[in-house]
Amino acid sequence: MSDPNDLSALLSEVWQHLGRGAADGRHPARYPTLATVSPAGMPEARTVALRAARRSQNRLEAHTDISTPKVASLAHHPWAQFHIWIPRADLQLRITTRVEIVTGTEVQAQWDAVPAASRVSYGTAPVPGTPIDHVYAYDKPPVRDRFAVLSCDVHEMDVVHLGAQHRRALFRAEDDWTGQWVAP
Amino acid sequence: MSDPNDLSALLSEVWQHLGRGAADGRHPARYPTLATVSPAGMPEARTVALRAARRSQNRLEAHTDISTPKVASLAHHPWAQFHIWIPRADLQLRITTRVEIVTGTEVQAQWDAVPAASRVSYGTAPVPGTPIDHVYAYDKPPVRDRFAVLSCDVHEMDVVHLGAQHRRALFRAEDDWTGQWVAP
Repeated sequence: MSDPNDLSALLSEVWQHLGRGAADGRHPARYPTLATVSPAGMPEARTVALRAARRSQNRLEAHTDISTPKVASLAHHPWAQFHIWIPRADLQLRITTRVEIVTGTEVQAQWDAVPAASRVSYGTAPVPGTPIDHVYAYDKPPVRDRFAVLSCDVHEMDVVHLGAQHRRALFRAEDDWTGQWVAP
Repeated sequence: MSDPNDLSALLSEVWQHLGRGAADGRHPARYPTLATVSPAGMPEARTVALRAARRSQNRLEAHTDISTPKVASLAHHPWAQFHIWIPRADLQLRITTRVEIVTGTEVQAQWDAVPAASRVSYGTAPVPGTPIDHVYAYDKPPVRDRFAVLSCDVHEMDVVHLGAQHRRALFRAEDDWTGQWVAP
């Protein structure tokens, strides 16, 4: 094992997991819980798929239907925390991000890469959350104009490693990611 | 399979999972993600252990160290959403609760039931989140007075079943839990 006191090794391990999550549908970092705050100020959380993780840009990406309540929440309060638990590594990641909602021609490349069978995730009629009379009283046509990319600038990471002795570190953009051990 | 349009069967299935999570450390409902809002209005999420799930009271319970930031968040804004993903059932639960922080003699029974080896989760010195000079520069004595129960009154459940055709229902206390199908 590497030096447990090495902050930069821990940060590299975190980005490795994120990169694998974005690339591999079976990696536990593929499906983070995304926490947001609703326009009424209420806590919200739901599963999202991690679609990109770029350390050079300190950026994570998820895709969404523009008609979902989380987009309304993020339009009102553009901060989200990704929560990821990686069982084999005993690692909890809590990643604070500022989110930009990107649509239209800017996200054409991402739309082109969405498999045809998955495009029905963007376009549910009536829009997600609308009351319906029967469990299956909805359609899922693909609607290009409802596709949005959540471009998430990472501001802070709170990393907990549950080992024989726990380790916990905070990494912040404003400290240029040097990191700081904190009591777990 | 039972009638997919049966709302009350779905609600019973949800409580069954919650009960098993509270009883069985290997069930996926054991470790929900708990989303809260910080005093500064920021979204936060972390893993908690589900310690009790009582349908008759519409209540969930988790335990915490009173010195953790989530207690400060809940003291400021007493709402939390539990997020649970149950892989074998393809079920996502989003459970909105109002949280009471209970300490002292009222939680003696819960403290008595905490195994000695687990009591060190309540009492970390310095308090969780404090910067430390070395990765292991902290102690974990058990401190009875830092033990708190988060008593969570369930107000709403948003349940998504990812099947060949997705199903999504909202259950609300104010509707006496009759439930309503909504577009997924």
